[in-house]
Amino acid sequence: MIGVFDSGVGGLTVLKALMRELPAERFVYLGDTARLPYGTKSAATVARYALQAAEALSGYGIKCLVVACNTASAVSLPAVRAHLAPVPVIGVIEPGAEAACAASASGRIAVIATEGTVRGGAYQEAIRLRRPEAEVHALPAPLFVALAEEGLGAGPIAEALAHHYLDALFAPADGALAADTLVLGCTHFPMLAGAIRAAVGPGVRIVDSAETTARHVRLALADAGLASPGGPGGLRLLATDAPERFARIGARFLERPIAPGEVELIDL
Amino acid sequence: MIGVFDSGVGGLTVLKALMRELPAERFVYLGDTARLPYGTKSAATVARYALQAAEALSGYGIKCLVVACNTASAVSLPAVRAHLAPVPVIGVIEPGAEAACAASASGRIAVIATEGTVRGGAYQEAIRLRRPEAEVHALPAPLFVALAEEGLGAGPIAEALAHHYLDALFAPADGALAADTLVLGCTHFPMLAGAIRAAVGPGVRIVDSAETTARHVRLALADAGLASPGGPGGLRLLATDAPERFARIGARFLERPIAPGEVELIDL
Repeated sequence: MIGVFDSGVGGLTVLKALMRELPAERFVYLGDTARLPYGTKSAATVARYALQAAEALSGYGIKCLVVACNTASAVSLPAVRAHLAPVPVIGVIEPGAEAACAASASGRIAVIATEGTVRGGAYQEAIRLRRPEAEVHALPAPLFVALAEEGLGAGPIAEALAHHYLDALFAPADGALAADTLVLGCTHFPMLAGAIRAAVGPGVRIVDSAETTARHVRLALADAGLASPGGPGGLRLLATDAPERFARIGARFLERPIAPGEVELIDL
Repeated sequence: MIGVFDSGVGGLTVLKALMRELPAERFVYLGDTARLPYGTKSAATVARYALQAAEALSGYGIKCLVVACNTASAVSLPAVRAHLAPVPVIGVIEPGAEAACAASASGRIAVIATEGTVRGGAYQEAIRLRRPEAEVHALPAPLFVALAEEGLGAGPIAEALAHHYLDALFAPADGALAADTLVLGCTHFPMLAGAIRAAVGPGVRIVDSAETTARHVRLALADAGLASPGGPGGLRLLATDAPERFARIGARFLERPIAPGEVELIDL
């Protein structure tokens, strides 16, 4: 069993990539819907929540934990790793930073994320560790989260908002050099990929950390000899509040229907 | 001391109206920023949070509690009243419903609110209690909350979103009769009053429950002989997480600067 944890439904974009990459594995996904969003909360609070979620998932006998929330990855990985050792714990920031460094020709990399992720500076740090000469611009795009949750990820409002957030970096009026790579540093943002592409134009490399994280997990399991030898796979969905809302909104993120009874309510 | 409680900064629009209506009173405002938003959470969870907040505020010796959150008002008032009795507890739904019934000529009344408030049906019920023939349309407008918090309450994105939510009710394509009154059933929405006005046109009555609630509180205090005989007034601000964010965003809602040190961090 592989544990996947997020503040809500956003991490389902990571789960979807994981299930595609690792079809023989069983997954248990926990969305902490009672306490979302994490993106506007303090680092100490988010780290405390992440530890509680990791503890709950360890009760399911997981062999690996994926922290599928950028904000939680940014502030809680060392503590969660120490708590779960020797179970490997994989966040979404390192894989995203690695893919961005590989994708960028100019070294001018933009990251959009929640307020908490940007403030914590984890992406900036992870990118500069790999490419010290990189010019990293991280900016919060919190409304994208609300837009994705409401199913308005495509269309004129999403595109207007994408221009609002991104024009300064990708169509700078002052003649400054534009970034050539954009990291979607929040698990909700793949839902706005079309609108974001329309705003930044065809030449920009867009890095979706869901896919890079899924590849990273596959390699880590293989390296540790933990990959499932084969099996039908499987999925359990857990939420800390409003399971019917989780099912309704989550279906868009997972790209398959979720029956309300499929989501188990748990308390942390 | 009058206690005012909200899930975050939105209730500051109610506090602002209260301080204008009752300048001689001292206020203590609690924003439950660690657990916001309430609008997407289940009724049982919100009611539990509201009771904890009421309990915390009662420790400040309050003579009256204003539940300045529509979602909490919709689901927790009976429990909070029973818990704090004989201290009067005033929500924002009853005053808003009363003002809407007084404002509407046709009886076709629209309410925009959070998902939780709409689902709970409290506005619909409160309006029909006063005008049984009223035709009430309640619809969730959750993105308005995120827009207001990010300071994008005015401008083209806000107006596009206002059209998205409101055109079906105020510019119906099928020739149906439009509503003549719109209740802003969430404390964040007064921050979008301009965009909403632009979308619905000049003929619609817009009911802001902040102002009607403030008048209601003044009358209730006078009726109970609890009004302050005069004094300099005063304000304490409490938040359960991220006080510096509360200060930064809250200043827009309160329409005056808030020093980060002015917001006390408390645990519920």
